[in-house]
Parts: sequence; structure tokens; C-alpha cells
Amino acid sequence: MAQAAPSKYLTGDIPATKEFLNKFDTFLIDCDGVLWSGEHVFDGIPQTIEFLRSQGKRTVFVTNNSTKSREEYLKKLESKDIPSGVEDIFGSAYSAAIYISRILKLPAPKNKVYVIGEAGIEHELSSENIPFIGGTDPAYRKDMDPEAWQGIADGSLLDPDVGVVLAGLDFHINYYKIAMGYQYLKRGAVFLATNLDSTLPLNKNFFPGAGSILIPLINMTGQQPLALGKPSQAMMDAVEGKFQLDRSRTCMIGDRLDTDIKFGIQGKLGGTLAVLTGVNKKEDWEKEGAVAAPAFYVDALSDLRAAAQ
Amino acid sequence: MAQAAPSKYLTGDIPATKEFLNKFDTFLIDCDGVLWSGEHVFDGIPQTIEFLRSQGKRTVFVTNNSTKSREEYLKKLESKDIPSGVEDIFGSAYSAAIYISRILKLPAPKNKVYVIGEAGIEHELSSENIPFIGGTDPAYRKDMDPEAWQGIADGSLLDPDVGVVLAGLDFHINYYKIAMGYQYLKRGAVFLATNLDSTLPLNKNFFPGAGSILIPLINMTGQQPLALGKPSQAMMDAVEGKFQLDRSRTCMIGDRLDTDIKFGIQGKLGGTLAVLTGVNKKEDWEKEGAVAAPAFYVDALSDLRAAAQ
Repeated sequence: MAQAAPSKYLTGDIPATKEFLNKFDTFLIDCDGVLWSGEHVFDGIPQTIEFLRSQGKRTVFVTNNSTKSREEYLKKLESKDIPSGVEDIFGSAYSAAIYISRILKLPAPKNKVYVIGEAGIEHELSSENIPFIGGTDPAYRKDMDPEAWQGIADGSLLDPDVGVVLAGLDFHINYYKIAMGYQYLKRGAVFLATNLDSTLPLNKNFFPGAGSILIPLINMTGQQPLALGKPSQAMMDAVEGKFQLDRSRTCMIGDRLDTDIKFGIQGKLGGTLAVLTGVNKKEDWEKEGAVAAPAFYVDALSDLRAAAQ
Repeated sequence: MAQAAPSKYLTGDIPATKEFLNKFDTFLIDCDGVLWSGEHVFDGIPQTIEFLRSQGKRTVFVTNNSTKSREEYLKKLESKDIPSGVEDIFGSAYSAAIYISRILKLPAPKNKVYVIGEAGIEHELSSENIPFIGGTDPAYRKDMDPEAWQGIADGSLLDPDVGVVLAGLDFHINYYKIAMGYQYLKRGAVFLATNLDSTLPLNKNFFPGAGSILIPLINMTGQQPLALGKPSQAMMDAVEGKFQLDRSRTCMIGDRLDTDIKFGIQGKLGGTLAVLTGVNKKEDWEKEGAVAAPAFYVDALSDLRAAAQ
């Protein structure tokens, strides 16, 4: 699915960068691998976001990382001097909560959500008044014991009101949580995922991503979850609805072809911009069978500031 | 891959059962789902094994469950009054240890094995004098903390002598263990699996199997491990070498088409017998695209005792 026109390289090309900026009103910006890697913010990022906003552009941070809620993301952005409001943040946990409360709308009391994930998911579910179990509850951070083997097998440990399994990145994943999730799915719960990223870029290396944490459930059930993060168009629809975007004047910026760039192309946005500070490199989209190719690319997001000259 | 001749049903058919027994000298017998489900031994199993041995048949227990060593398996068999010697037990952990020490033969000191799994794997590695880390070491049963994020990312927590990642069923799987395993594979360690069973039948239900515990590593690296359990023919070669089998006079007995029955067919054994006390049912091999079909089947292994009449 590499596109016909070659990807245009903007770094160091001031006229092309200015032309690029003039095409768009809104930039949807991935965070991990674009703004930062873990706690390390890339050079010039705060100034770049400031510059885009000074040019009248709307900057929306669209992230698949479900471990933080929008409020927590805002705190991180602020601590790194990156200008934003909470309304400019759209995460996969929020996307999942919106989907459950406004689209899935299971009738109570069978609308409880079994969560595999961290506090970000819990906060967003709470903000939509969705009942849930699991998640960061210490009762689920346990080893298997005879009661667990028996109670999971005979169902006595299961909550009969669970109608949804929502799985995302869980730094406390264990055998017990996977075994419980499988039982709920086997009983017919709807299978949702915040996102399917296989890895999480952090500290200049890679760690297990949400897609690798929840894949045991896919392997056991043979079922694929509905993913609510990039590149799922369920997320794009939610973003468009919230921000009233003109898709033709919107550009997706990200480091991953299989999430960010695919998300922008499938969403028929006016453009996509790849940055080379994260997972994918130029050779990844130039090779045969590449999952997606960006319309534009830069070495780093801060290269866009050249247009300020 | 369903075979041309229909599977022959032996339950209640005494002449056919006698004819079946006369075809074979050795029975390779799966344990979980055939002899027992968890701690529950199926009716008549001790007497059936006793009967087969009284008929001059060799009974070899071939199991993909890597959580127990051969000695531990023997204890379990004895506690259930099932006659066996330690030499009649062949597990995937033992198969993996044999493969590492006698076939892979990495030069020391770069031959250390990073284990994801339980004590069974450790015991079998020790019996072959293979150095290992991970496994049941309490130091690996930990949450991520700043030192872990940093030390895994920068490599300071990694052992430079690890040349193999051996993954199997681990009831204490966690984020830390997966993250470590990924780093070793990324550095070029050989990727081995005791087995790839997606589920573990227990207490009349299903729990995550080895294949579902290690699949995050497959998802992150895009690499497939070499599996040393059924249906891998590496295991069949090891079994044949150890027991000096005449394959044409050997029958594989099991409950799973994708491991047991496939193992016997691909190993060109004289026959395969499916039992219906475990994972698969008759409709599973009769449907279009079935992974394998047994030559014979019974409702339960104890049905073979009818031939004693």
C-alpha cells in the first residue's frame, strides 16, 4: 500500500516546509517517539509546538498509550513545557470509554468492564460513569493459588455482570489476569483493546506494548478485539466528532507506519508526516509490501521550526 | 490434512479393540486430558495402564507440560496409582534440555539460558549441566521500577552470556520477564519453546498454555521459536533415539489434534488414537480444514480395557 508519489523530505527545505504548513489547520500529533522517548523530551519540541500554535494551527495530541488519563497527560506535557489544554489530548483509553458509553451502550447491570490495564483506563471509564473491575485493583496482582485455580475454573470467582473485556498496556500483567480475561471472553464478553501496538518505545529502546500484553487472549480465543486506538477508524471518527475537523486540512504526525501513518491515510486526511525519532525509518516505507508510506517526512518534529525563519 | 480412511471408533467394539492392540508394541501417551484433568484422574486409568503393561506393551508418557520435571511427573503418576518408571516419561522440558546440550551445543560461556518457565525446566537443564538464569528466581518476580526500566533499556541488567531464550509455561509471568526476554532475543539469542499449546486443560476448564505465555515475544520480535514439544519432530526424533522405537509398531494416544495426533501422523507412526476426555471432539477432525484426524478414537482411554474380557 505504498502510495504512488514519493514521500517528500522537508528537513532543511524551508520553502517546502512553509508550503507544507500552509496546507493544514490542524495537526494530530502522536506523543511517544515524536515528542519524547519516555522521560526524555527531544530537543526543540516545546518551541516547535509553540511555533505551530503561533501560526494559528490547532495541535491535538493523539496517543495510543492508555496508561495515562488525559489529565495525567496534560501534567506530563506541562512538566515538559509543551503547551496544551486537556481538550487537546485524545488517548486510546478515552476513545475506548467513549465507545463503551456512547456506542456499545450495554444495558445495566450487564455493562461492567473487566480491565487489563493501568490507571489511565480506569480514570477514563470513571469519567464516563462506566462500572469496572480488575485494572489496578491489588486483589488482581496475585499469584495463582488453589482457590484461584478452582474459582476461575468453576466460575465462582467471576463477576456475572461483566459484559466487556477492555485490554490495554498493563505493567502488572500476570497469569491470573489473563486467565480471568479468557473466561469472560469465553462467556461472551465483548472484546475491546485500547490499541494493538506491539512495542512501547522508551529510554531509546523498546518494551512490550499493549498489543503484546493482550495477545495471549487472542491466541487462546481465536478472537480479534476491536481496537479503539490508532489506526482504528473508530478513533478517527471520535476525534473528528469532538474537534469538528476538516479532514482535508488536517495532518497526522507520527513515528509509526502501522499506527500513525496508516491512521491518517485510512482516515483520508489531507496529509501525513513521519518523524524519524521513533520506531520506523525511511527504508521501512520504501520496501516492498510496506504497510503505509507518509506523504511527508522530517528527521525530527523540530525541523518544522525552520519555517519560522 | 484429514486422512482418507474414516477414524475407527473402538469404544464398545471388543474385536476391533483387540485388533487395535495387536498392531502395536509401544504406546506414546499424552497426560493432560488423557490420564487426568489437573488433579482429577479419570475413572479406570491406573487399571488401563496396568492392563496395557500386562499385555507386554511399553507405555511412555509424552507430555508438553514443562512445569514438572520427569521426577515430579513420576511422583504424580505414583500418587495416582499409575504404574511407570522415570525412564518411561518424556516431557517437553527434558526434550528442550537434550536439544540444547546435545544438538545446539553453544560454546561456553555464551551458552547460558534465560528461562521463562517453572521448576520443571530448571531441573531438566540442571540434569544436563546447562547454566541458566530467570525461571523461578524470586529476583525476576518483581514489578517494573525506575532501575528496571533503565537497566533493561541500557542493557546493564542483562547477562552478556545469555545465548538462548527458552520459554515455556510460567505461572508467574510478568512484564519484567517479557521485557528481559525480548532484549535477549533482540541481541541474537536462539529462541526455543518447550511447546506452543495455546491452552492448558485443568479442572474441566482451560487456562493459558505455554504458547499463550510466550506469544508476546513472538509478537514483539516477529520471530517464531523452535518448539521442542509435540508436534515438533525434534521431540519425536529424541523419543525414537531414547526408546529405540519401531515407528510402525508405535501408536500415539492423545486428546489434541494439533499436538498429539499431528505429532503421530507427521512422525509416521503406525497409528494414532484420539480420546474424547480432553480438548478435541469428533466434529473437530471431521470438519473441513481439520489440522489432523486420528486413525482410531475412543470415548475414554479406559475403554481399551474392554479387550481384557
